Amino acid sequence: MANAATRMKKLINGAADVVPDSLAGLAAAHPDLVRVDVANSVVLRATGPKAGKVALVSGGGSGHEPLHSGFVGLGMLDAACVGQVFTSPVPDQVEAATRAVDGGAGVLHIVKNYTGDVLNFGMAAELVAGEIEVSSVITNDDVAVEDSLHTAGRRGVGATVLVEKIAGAAAEAGASLGDVSATALKVNDQGRSMGLALTSCVVPTAGTPTFELGDDEVEVGIGIHGEPGRRRATLGAVDDMAEWLVSPIVSDLGLSRGQTVLAFVNGMGGTPLIELYVAFDSVARILSGLGITIGRSLVGNYITSLEMAGFSVTLLRLDDELVRLWDAPVHTASLRRGI
Amino acid sequence: MANAATRMKKLINGAADVVPDSLAGLAAAHPDLVRVDVANSVVLRATGPKAGKVALVSGGGSGHEPLHSGFVGLGMLDAACVGQVFTSPVPDQVEAATRAVDGGAGVLHIVKNYTGDVLNFGMAAELVAGEIEVSSVITNDDVAVEDSLHTAGRRGVGATVLVEKIAGAAAEAGASLGDVSATALKVNDQGRSMGLALTSCVVPTAGTPTFELGDDEVEVGIGIHGEPGRRRATLGAVDDMAEWLVSPIVSDLGLSRGQTVLAFVNGMGGTPLIELYVAFDSVARILSGLGITIGRSLVGNYITSLEMAGFSVTLLRLDDELVRLWDAPVHTASLRRGI
Repeated sequence: MANAATRMKKLINGAADVVPDSLAGLAAAHPDLVRVDVANSVVLRATGPKAGKVALVSGGGSGHEPLHSGFVGLGMLDAACVGQVFTSPVPDQVEAATRAVDGGAGVLHIVKNYTGDVLNFGMAAELVAGEIEVSSVITNDDVAVEDSLHTAGRRGVGATVLVEKIAGAAAEAGASLGDVSATALKVNDQGRSMGLALTSCVVPTAGTPTFELGDDEVEVGIGIHGEPGRRRATLGAVDDMAEWLVSPIVSDLGLSRGQTVLAFVNGMGGTPLIELYVAFDSVARILSGLGITIGRSLVGNYITSLEMAGFSVTLLRLDDELVRLWDAPVHTASLRRGI
Repeated sequence: MANAATRMKKLINGAADVVPDSLAGLAAAHPDLVRVDVANSVVLRATGPKAGKVALVSGGGSGHEPLHSGFVGLGMLDAACVGQVFTSPVPDQVEAATRAVDGGAGVLHIVKNYTGDVLNFGMAAELVAGEIEVSSVITNDDVAVEDSLHTAGRRGVGATVLVEKIAGAAAEAGASLGDVSATALKVNDQGRSMGLALTSCVVPTAGTPTFELGDDEVEVGIGIHGEPGRRRATLGAVDDMAEWLVSPIVSDLGLSRGQTVLAFVNGMGGTPLIELYVAFDSVARILSGLGITIGRSLVGNYITSLEMAGFSVTLLRLDDELVRLWDAPVHTASLRRGI
């Protein structure tokens, strides 16, 4: 480990301690919001299941914080299943979370489209079949590539944050499992994303960068675990790099003049806020030039890849229902309004 | 610039465009909250001055976002004066901000203790003397060193965020300029901070790292512009590094068993949230061992140094007044509750 220590600079005790220590910190910082089932590595709402409310369970590998653990709370998730860094949670974790949050009205699984996640959430749903009604929504909003490392079909990325917020609001308002599922599917259908990395990240147990990028190279269409994107390009002005992301999204989503979107500029973890607002300015000017209105916005680090530098853009076509649910109260560690 | 491009990887158009582009992005993302006086590089509340309310003006160099521009809004700042990266705003900017926010009840300047900031806010106060009543509070909560590069006396760091929130709540509740100033002073007096850097940062106009750190070195007591701290040390477990920060703070603040604090673990910009919660866990266990209770907490990137990796700890001794004001509603781009 002497070599690793000279390469990897992180605020950790040991590579194996990152996830439990971080969950302990989350619980210590937000005892009013969450409690941690340590044995299962599951983050639950502090208040326990609410009878008659559809419960939302998501999860995935760690390293994407605040997704998903920072979104557990009123108006968003009921539980987050926390895997090791960039590693799917196992079926037992998802089963435990599903049982813990069930309030009798059914449970929605929100699953990013990675083979391990889809498989393990599916097995958990089978484990509770006949006891708890489970519906699953797979997010697959990344327009960068069709199939990818770890994924058949498109990857689930930034729209997952929006699905969790909007479906969470629907559930909090008393919608049925069918209606909450339909809302989640609609957000996924009307949302598209693409990202770009300036640097790699280092998985603690690996101790070395996941991939290599030249001093003036960027990866266009990067995956949230460092999966390859569409191409390598030379670092450009952010106006150009934003165009590389916005154009494929607008095209894929079929956005046209006069439509209104939620524009989400997401940081990958290592890019400071001053730059994310520079990127938002680029995105806003591009959309304005296309006659597309930004009705709502979100800027910050919401779905990250450890300390990777870079950004992603997610656009969600808005309508009155989605605006109303987006604006609804939410109280989680990392997203809050109205409470 | 070809050489610079191979060293500096940022989401920018050009080094000179960072601040105006970022402010344009802030305005585009949050038109309900803020408007930007472009000529003066000042961020103002969208709603303009409120008659009879004490107004709060802060500011400083850019590169510390969300401080201060992300804290303009109801229950916090009325204006933020935005300098170039790591460069004090000039007196004309502060004068323009002070005039723009004055609602007839006086204006509080919240100034981090750096020589340029103190000088320029002071000159602005003189420029409006006889017209607008101005009170100034200088934050100087950094226990790392006495005098420093750019500073006579202690530097103003993390407690500034808490001063802005808590004094902002007092002003919103209708307190007089004298009372708002007294509250701000109390927060500064009862708060102490210290930080640690894992990496340097790159100022866009410089294009190269502000300082050099070895692969296994950290700077203990780092300043928010990369000013030297107390010592260089070998990268350790976060439990140890947290101890290096918490011990001097507890000692300097004279905290004793049975007292209650707000514990604030702040990221420097390039450290991901998963690690900040690991650090919070370390801080929480150290405080628990000392018999000190965490009554409130804050975890995230709130006062940053561009993309620097590292963290700082701020502890604020709480009492009923400070808890009440901390819990009061706030609606800014980067801190929100109750609204």
